[in-house]
Amino acid sequence: MTDPASTALRTDHYELTMLSSALRDGTAHRHCVFEVFTRRLPDGRRYGVVGGVERLLEAVENFRFDERVLESLERDRVCDRRTLEWLANFRFAGDIDGYPEGELYFPGSPLLTVSGTFAEAVLLETVVLSILNHDSAVVAAATRMASAANGRRLIEMGSRRTHEESAVASARAAYLAGFAATSNLLAGARYGIPTAGTSAHAFTMLHDSEREAFESQVAALGADTTLLVDTYDITEGIRTAVEVAGTDLGSVRIDSGDVGVLARQAREQLDSLGATGTRIVVSGDLDEFAIASLRAEPVDVYGVGTSLVTGSGYPTCGMVYKLAEVDGRPVVKRSSHKESRGGSKNALRRHKPTGTALEEVVHRNGPGIEPPEAGPHDRFVQLPLVRGGERLDNLPGLEDNRQRLRHALVSLPWEGLKLSAGEPAIPTVFENF
Amino acid sequence: MTDPASTALRTDHYELTMLSSALRDGTAHRHCVFEVFTRRLPDGRRYGVVGGVERLLEAVENFRFDERVLESLERDRVCDRRTLEWLANFRFAGDIDGYPEGELYFPGSPLLTVSGTFAEAVLLETVVLSILNHDSAVVAAATRMASAANGRRLIEMGSRRTHEESAVASARAAYLAGFAATSNLLAGARYGIPTAGTSAHAFTMLHDSEREAFESQVAALGADTTLLVDTYDITEGIRTAVEVAGTDLGSVRIDSGDVGVLARQAREQLDSLGATGTRIVVSGDLDEFAIASLRAEPVDVYGVGTSLVTGSGYPTCGMVYKLAEVDGRPVVKRSSHKESRGGSKNALRRHKPTGTALEEVVHRNGPGIEPPEAGPHDRFVQLPLVRGGERLDNLPGLEDNRQRLRHALVSLPWEGLKLSAGEPAIPTVFENF
Repeated sequence: MTDPASTALRTDHYELTMLSSALRDGTAHRHCVFEVFTRRLPDGRRYGVVGGVERLLEAVENFRFDERVLESLERDRVCDRRTLEWLANFRFAGDIDGYPEGELYFPGSPLLTVSGTFAEAVLLETVVLSILNHDSAVVAAATRMASAANGRRLIEMGSRRTHEESAVASARAAYLAGFAATSNLLAGARYGIPTAGTSAHAFTMLHDSEREAFESQVAALGADTTLLVDTYDITEGIRTAVEVAGTDLGSVRIDSGDVGVLARQAREQLDSLGATGTRIVVSGDLDEFAIASLRAEPVDVYGVGTSLVTGSGYPTCGMVYKLAEVDGRPVVKRSSHKESRGGSKNALRRHKPTGTALEEVVHRNGPGIEPPEAGPHDRFVQLPLVRGGERLDNLPGLEDNRQRLRHALVSLPWEGLKLSAGEPAIPTVFENF
Repeated sequence: MTDPASTALRTDHYELTMLSSALRDGTAHRHCVFEVFTRRLPDGRRYGVVGGVERLLEAVENFRFDERVLESLERDRVCDRRTLEWLANFRFAGDIDGYPEGELYFPGSPLLTVSGTFAEAVLLETVVLSILNHDSAVVAAATRMASAANGRRLIEMGSRRTHEESAVASARAAYLAGFAATSNLLAGARYGIPTAGTSAHAFTMLHDSEREAFESQVAALGADTTLLVDTYDITEGIRTAVEVAGTDLGSVRIDSGDVGVLARQAREQLDSLGATGTRIVVSGDLDEFAIASLRAEPVDVYGVGTSLVTGSGYPTCGMVYKLAEVDGRPVVKRSSHKESRGGSKNALRRHKPTGTALEEVVHRNGPGIEPPEAGPHDRFVQLPLVRGGERLDNLPGLEDNRQRLRHALVSLPWEGLKLSAGEPAIPTVFENF
């Protein structure tokens, strides 16, 4: 239908009608600053985590209206000929600054700043928000899970519970948050994320006996594999598993029942059989609270699915893409009770000398505007990402951003890492408005 | 990276390790029946709605391991050489039967039955579940909204709140449920769904005054357009809108505040200005409950975003893909308290002579098995979809399935359409097991 790499139709109809009108009256060429932020975190969450920035930059690069895209817009009468001609040559040529992936954010944080003509900046709204709202929701949930797992290994296995393409982005978000691997093969191929998995209950049921299934798996994958022991009776399953694989058996997986109790029994049984090095993998409807509640149990690996890919109760973030400045002049919407601050912004994150974060100082930014004073432990959070339409070289990659998140979490006041509902870990303050 | 049309990597790692083991021991060629079902509906929901079947059939057709896919599997050491060779020639050659899109379902309904060798059927698990779980979650929420809207026009505008590709599937699901249009241009191009949209607050703020913005929009799009009147003061906005566009103004849109109160005031004001034919569009965090609560207000069109694309609290369905039969013999997992019934199944939906649905009779299905007796008002719910790997001709299309859903809702007992939490609208009973 259309070039699958083109992201130009991942756009709301109204972007193009606004563009038509603005091209006609000349305002399309006014210089604008749009910004992405969220007024609040999901109920009780103490921090947000930025995800999707790399995907977003790729989407901006591929935001081109090729022949087929233009034909479809013409056929569906989305916009007039003048607009179609303008779109044929479209290439985003503005600037983008933003929070990198793995950075924490708080209510009002200026997550992304897009500067350019109205025409070029307004077109990006939908695709930018889709990517940030989705990926940040998943990475936030994944971060809470990684934090609850306290160093134990996590495997993402939620592909089947979300759209097949969201599944790939979710696997990437989970890896960013510290998950060790994903079940999703496309995430492995596309992003180089380690993939993992061995067998499902169906594999055991396919065979005439559990023993035959285990024998087959060990013959194919070696004794270091993970045997799924809860298809029939778990105690018998573990006994058979060790008989078949020997005490070098890699892991057993338990996917149902009260996994805490079962893990303890499994550990005792494995130890009594001499399989003291065999790990225990648990899966089945785990979320960050379940993971935390299993801390005292002898679990080595968590497999997490549904709750991860659905953002653990918050499948989207409330990020919006708002016009903040027109030709250097701050603009705001004024109809509602919502407090808004116009103008281009950055944030300074202040820290104590110990490195603990103190506050998120959101401030006006731009030529002739004095930023707040930064102490030796403070840092401005946005990075330049795109200049004149060109993605900057040497932007941090997935592994860098994985480290960034790890360090950012350490900088939070200790209560900021609690899973329970509470206030944002640090306050947002507004300066120089 | 890989052929974007190929769906073969939308697969969990363990499907391929199971395949490796099963090819090695010969069980890969056993004839299997897998089935998709869900044990329960989301809390308090009274019916489920099937979505995604057409997308699923397309995914099965495109489930091919091309050169690049095979290279990536080899590089990542996902499976052995024998398995790679087998995959190179893979093409699903089995049968699929299932509930068509727009069909209602209940706990235990046999939504999809995949028959073939273990090898070919097990590979489809992840992509089949991704599509059905996502699309059915959205279509169920959309159906509740359409039901609450009671004939008023609904526009889907949630693209920005979900992954950019889920957005397209969500727009399609909303249309299936009876929405009139979507904001998503790619859904328009790909599926022929009507698209809609005119302008955002940014367009008004871009201009030196609201009046100039309205004049520009009316000049470009005509008086029949929709003017967004709540950027500054709504009363002034409506007055300006009618002054600019005249009493032929198509619609005004209100996107914030207490939209019920504002709609009433807007109606009075529009009528007093002589714009009695101007419609009122409301948007902004609407869900099925908000839509229902606006029934008494003079609202003509609802724009729905976040709650639609996130399944209104239930972003995924709990559908699973279970092995039900091996070489004609029913199989079940037995480790947990979950009640399972092996064997291939169909459902008979029984109705009263008035056409009201009575019960979902889930029953064993297959050669030599006597199905339950069907009365003149009853029907077997599954349709044949694929035979010998070939998608059947003349399967119902999106428009047919839209009608199917409309009729199916009429067949529910009246309390089945209530938005409040309750039991499934009809009971599921199991016969001939």
